[in-house]
Amino acid sequence: MSVVIALDVMGGDRAPEIVIEGADLALGRNPELRFILFGDEARVGPLLAGHPALRQAAELHHTPDAVAADAKPSAALRQGRNSSMRLAIDAVQDGRAGAAVSAGNTGALMAMAMIVLKTLPGIDRPAIASVLPTKRSPVVFLDLGANAVCSAEMLFQFAVMGEVYARAVLGVAKPRVGLLNIGTEEVKGDGVVRSAAALVRDSGLPIDYVGFVEGTGVTAGTVDVVVTDGFTGNVALKIAEGTASMFTHSLRQVFESSLRAKLGYLLARPALRGLRDRFDPRLYNGAMFLGVNGVVVKSHGGTDSVGFAAAIRAALDLISRGTNERIIEEMGRVAIPDEADGDAAKPQAATG
Amino acid sequence: MSVVIALDVMGGDRAPEIVIEGADLALGRNPELRFILFGDEARVGPLLAGHPALRQAAELHHTPDAVAADAKPSAALRQGRNSSMRLAIDAVQDGRAGAAVSAGNTGALMAMAMIVLKTLPGIDRPAIASVLPTKRSPVVFLDLGANAVCSAEMLFQFAVMGEVYARAVLGVAKPRVGLLNIGTEEVKGDGVVRSAAALVRDSGLPIDYVGFVEGTGVTAGTVDVVVTDGFTGNVALKIAEGTASMFTHSLRQVFESSLRAKLGYLLARPALRGLRDRFDPRLYNGAMFLGVNGVVVKSHGGTDSVGFAAAIRAALDLISRGTNERIIEEMGRVAIPDEADGDAAKPQAATG
Repeated sequence: MSVVIALDVMGGDRAPEIVIEGADLALGRNPELRFILFGDEARVGPLLAGHPALRQAAELHHTPDAVAADAKPSAALRQGRNSSMRLAIDAVQDGRAGAAVSAGNTGALMAMAMIVLKTLPGIDRPAIASVLPTKRSPVVFLDLGANAVCSAEMLFQFAVMGEVYARAVLGVAKPRVGLLNIGTEEVKGDGVVRSAAALVRDSGLPIDYVGFVEGTGVTAGTVDVVVTDGFTGNVALKIAEGTASMFTHSLRQVFESSLRAKLGYLLARPALRGLRDRFDPRLYNGAMFLGVNGVVVKSHGGTDSVGFAAAIRAALDLISRGTNERIIEEMGRVAIPDEADGDAAKPQAATG
Repeated sequence: MSVVIALDVMGGDRAPEIVIEGADLALGRNPELRFILFGDEARVGPLLAGHPALRQAAELHHTPDAVAADAKPSAALRQGRNSSMRLAIDAVQDGRAGAAVSAGNTGALMAMAMIVLKTLPGIDRPAIASVLPTKRSPVVFLDLGANAVCSAEMLFQFAVMGEVYARAVLGVAKPRVGLLNIGTEEVKGDGVVRSAAALVRDSGLPIDYVGFVEGTGVTAGTVDVVVTDGFTGNVALKIAEGTASMFTHSLRQVFESSLRAKLGYLLARPALRGLRDRFDPRLYNGAMFLGVNGVVVKSHGGTDSVGFAAAIRAALDLISRGTNERIIEEMGRVAIPDEADGDAAKPQAATG
């Protein structure tokens, strides 16, 4: 049975080339894929000519409009109704595609996904989620930046969605769920994170909630799902990326610093390749907008075809494992927690 | 001229041994140091016997009490009046010592420092600051966990203190100061960080404020001072530590994975040592409680003598550069900003 995915062919720093090449790579691995491509025919047509298998598996819808990388979400919403990004999301809304994938402007993509697809029942706001490497197995990390300020209710909903994702897509039988905090003791952190802990504990859901987890616990792999607000999550993600980049940069300098070090590098190279592959950010590409009523995946804007293929794979997994249906089911089981009446649990203004 | 530093000899996982050895190391490098040691004479006395130079430069005050690593700050305040930690802070308060250094319980140390020493004029709450490596020059990062929730006023005060520290201690002529955020555009983030930006801009101080900085910008070294709330800062610090640890752990595995890789390691080892030294967390040990009316430095609880010596050096630098006097002077120059009347600039409840 085929799975149809709508692609914003014009989104991202290296579009449309890497989008077409990424789709071709993904198709090679998952022949059940079919694509609806939204983009500029004059640029996309010649690229498709070079990929006959993909041309067979794809239909191209011409549109001259694209959302600029620096467009404000509100402007993209008003002016981008005929953009490649918006048309890809529309294709999910009207059922022609099971998912939309874009490497374009994150804020615009989130705004369009919210306006066109709305949120799942029981979910107030979607979260951006991604899978990241740790010392042990990968961790589902959310929210990575959709909501700078979160209420306890929102964090609770993120926990439910992240747990379902770890089960459905990563195949973890009983995911360990933690709330990111500045200490593991129950008294740590602000009122929001403490209220969210109470909501998870009292939800009646069979979530394996392990309590608060610190930054070092996340990278150590002590949990399968880690939940935080979009401000903290975005900073944490970018600090982790930056630290990894600083380290690889310095390692490269070391191996170039002397003839002896160069020889050492040549000997260790096959083993070092394994390290590179394990932490290759391209393989973890594809951030999910969990909580949107439809599957929308955001690729890193600067990725290459290998990374874009990983984002398509993330979308395919979300569809084929019925992730959204399982989130709806789970949210339907939530007990009404009396404790949610406290001040700290009340939603705060959510600004992006 | 001698500089007197009070040491909590009983604080930390490996006390009192590493405290005494660290003090001895520091004294070897800075012969002007004098120490007042607070701790259990039965344990500290024999250690001092093995370090005659240090014994000459130190006086030991016996106390049998120590603050437990897991003690709540409130309990430590009530029950720890005769503890090695409290007596070291008392020595700063009554002028016998220019600074106190402890590797003990962070929360208790902060609570005692606040109660005994109070804050500097113009400063509402102290921040925990540390110097961290980046791709370029080191960055002053605060708050690392003293205040889970911060008002815009607090972030502004942290910016002033961090800027003075970078000038006074790191010797940066015109430190670039940034506010940590989830994007560099002015509209990004929550109301607090946007109001803090306005306070820094409108302060009338000659601060080289460069605007918002993202996590990747911090590690890239785009600023000399980065300011954030204690929740985000603590998570960011621990994610960075965890990512670095994950990386070095994996690198060690790589070099042990085959005979060929082992040979490569042996060849590259001298060069790799340079890398290790550059990012050695012990050399960055010593978190400053900026804003306390007195110099208090917190050493990592699990550090060794090299790390503890670095914390003593941080305290010595804070004293000898007159950092606190310069912060007072700077805060005295702040223009009263009209914009601070907005809702978002009002202090929120600060819970640790």
